[in-house]
Amino acid sequence: MTQHVSPVLFAPSATEILERGQWLVRPALRDATSRLHPDVARMAEFTLGWCDADGTPRHDNAAKGVRPALAVLCAEAVGGPAEAAVAGAAAVELVHTFSLVHDDIMDGDERRRHRDTVWKSFGVGPAVLAGDALFALAVGALAETAPQVRPAAVRALSHALVDLVNGQAEDISFERRPWSGLGAVTVDEYSAMAGCKTGALLGCAAGLGALLGGAPADVVNALTRMGRHLGLAFQAVDDLLGIWGDPAVTGKPVFSDLRRGKKTLPVIAALSAGPAVRAELLDLLDPRRSGTGSSESGFRRAAALIDEAGGRSFTTDLAERQLDLALRIIDEAAVDREAVAGLTVLCDLVANRTR
Amino acid sequence: MTQHVSPVLFAPSATEILERGQWLVRPALRDATSRLHPDVARMAEFTLGWCDADGTPRHDNAAKGVRPALAVLCAEAVGGPAEAAVAGAAAVELVHTFSLVHDDIMDGDERRRHRDTVWKSFGVGPAVLAGDALFALAVGALAETAPQVRPAAVRALSHALVDLVNGQAEDISFERRPWSGLGAVTVDEYSAMAGCKTGALLGCAAGLGALLGGAPADVVNALTRMGRHLGLAFQAVDDLLGIWGDPAVTGKPVFSDLRRGKKTLPVIAALSAGPAVRAELLDLLDPRRSGTGSSESGFRRAAALIDEAGGRSFTTDLAERQLDLALRIIDEAAVDREAVAGLTVLCDLVANRTR
Repeated sequence: MTQHVSPVLFAPSATEILERGQWLVRPALRDATSRLHPDVARMAEFTLGWCDADGTPRHDNAAKGVRPALAVLCAEAVGGPAEAAVAGAAAVELVHTFSLVHDDIMDGDERRRHRDTVWKSFGVGPAVLAGDALFALAVGALAETAPQVRPAAVRALSHALVDLVNGQAEDISFERRPWSGLGAVTVDEYSAMAGCKTGALLGCAAGLGALLGGAPADVVNALTRMGRHLGLAFQAVDDLLGIWGDPAVTGKPVFSDLRRGKKTLPVIAALSAGPAVRAELLDLLDPRRSGTGSSESGFRRAAALIDEAGGRSFTTDLAERQLDLALRIIDEAAVDREAVAGLTVLCDLVANRTR
Repeated sequence: MTQHVSPVLFAPSATEILERGQWLVRPALRDATSRLHPDVARMAEFTLGWCDADGTPRHDNAAKGVRPALAVLCAEAVGGPAEAAVAGAAAVELVHTFSLVHDDIMDGDERRRHRDTVWKSFGVGPAVLAGDALFALAVGALAETAPQVRPAAVRALSHALVDLVNGQAEDISFERRPWSGLGAVTVDEYSAMAGCKTGALLGCAAGLGALLGGAPADVVNALTRMGRHLGLAFQAVDDLLGIWGDPAVTGKPVFSDLRRGKKTLPVIAALSAGPAVRAELLDLLDPRRSGTGSSESGFRRAAALIDEAGGRSFTTDLAERQLDLALRIIDEAAVDREAVAGLTVLCDLVANRTR
């Protein structure tokens, strides 16, 4: 046991960690997509960032691959080999990719990762099928896990899948909720939604990695919780980028979440500030009020108001708190110091990413 | 062993068999949908035929429930208890229901089971999510199988899922293929597509039932093959109903498959008849030719031509042949005579159904 003994001297870079995860999981993903009908395989490969819509190969890694890296590092953190986590890492990445494809249909989003989304490129019907195919391949990847851990792996993924769907349903239901007053979305409700929509799958990635790495149930549960905290941080950063992100880096339109009228965490927090700020903000954001909400300058003013009202710092603080909780669990549950160093870098990446 | 000994004296009716399957699997399906966000649960329950779009309960069993009945009877046929198959039966029924919801989006179908389809009732985005939820619940149902058979169950379902997606992709790709000449869809290609799109899941229902009922691998494989034959019969009957079905019974428009320009088995078979019939049929069906194809009388004439050219009898014969193959396997592989009687009734129902 080297726990809490040797200091970390050479921590890998975030790029190295992500590339190693991609490199480890890529053959499993290639095997998976090779099982598909050519028409669907093309869409799946486009979605995974391996080619353009016309099939031209790409080598710029459009997908970050946070989840595969997390699964692999968690397997190593509990003393297992990285390779043990590959089937679980592939399953989680396929589920993540499926959910992006279908969410973009539901949300009507036309751009992702600097490209047209799948439904925009291939049509809604084919995009539904592409998502289904990725989902089917995720179950197939799970069938490649070792038989002795497969029952627990199926249970873990099935819970994450139901959370994912329920989180998306809750997020959509927020659109019908009022912007203020009785029935307005609270910070707690938002966090519960984000815990399902984003936290569950990151928790599953970490927990599956630990499970496949040979960890006992209590360590698997701890690292699942760790991934959920990381997921809440991830979602908070996503919300910050949705308002203040650089479109040249995020690949999404400027003020994208404000344009879509999304009630994200910075907005919800800002709306609970003083009545003066709330009134002006509601004029800008609530489409039922007359306002300049739909103009570029209106969005800019709204973003500044949210910042002034403390919505931005509240969200940053929440991300940092969740990151701290995640790091604390890693320090307690993990036994491999090198993997802990890697996980720390990965967590920092999630909290400080710009896309 | 009572095999090949006692004659069956009292065979249950098809209605009794289906109702028993529904009754056995209903609690598992109720448990499953209770895990969903209320908005998604409403759509899932609508899809399963338990309520109208506004939530009013229905008690008329819109879903036939062939797959749950097949799974349960196969568990009994191999000497296991019916209850052992329930988790597998639920998983397969949830996958089937998910695929109907998403296929209706892809095909633009507005009516199913005498009601508006899910996307027509709730919108495309929500219908995508409803299908995803049913899919997620199917994986969850699988997580309820006994741990010692779960690895094999996951493998069986994952194969069926990939076949299902590939079959749907191939079916969609047939729309782009020419009606005649080089590149026209052949009977063999059509059968391979139907084997994936319809056969795989019926095969999975039968195989999972046998597996959960405690059968050895060779019996599981035999009953999986049996289900695939039954699936080919099922699809052939579906194709017959798509042209000659009574809309009052099928719940779909009259000549529905001809309206949609689908290259189904009766059409493909008729087009391989003499050149005179083919020319007139192409005038009626191929939208690139001038013709009366889009009129009610045009569809009626096309249906008559397909019949005269032997497309109807070819399809009926194929259904009967596949049914025979299924019944022969049941007779060889099954040990419980009462379950065999039930399976025989279920197979006859599939081959002689009117909706």
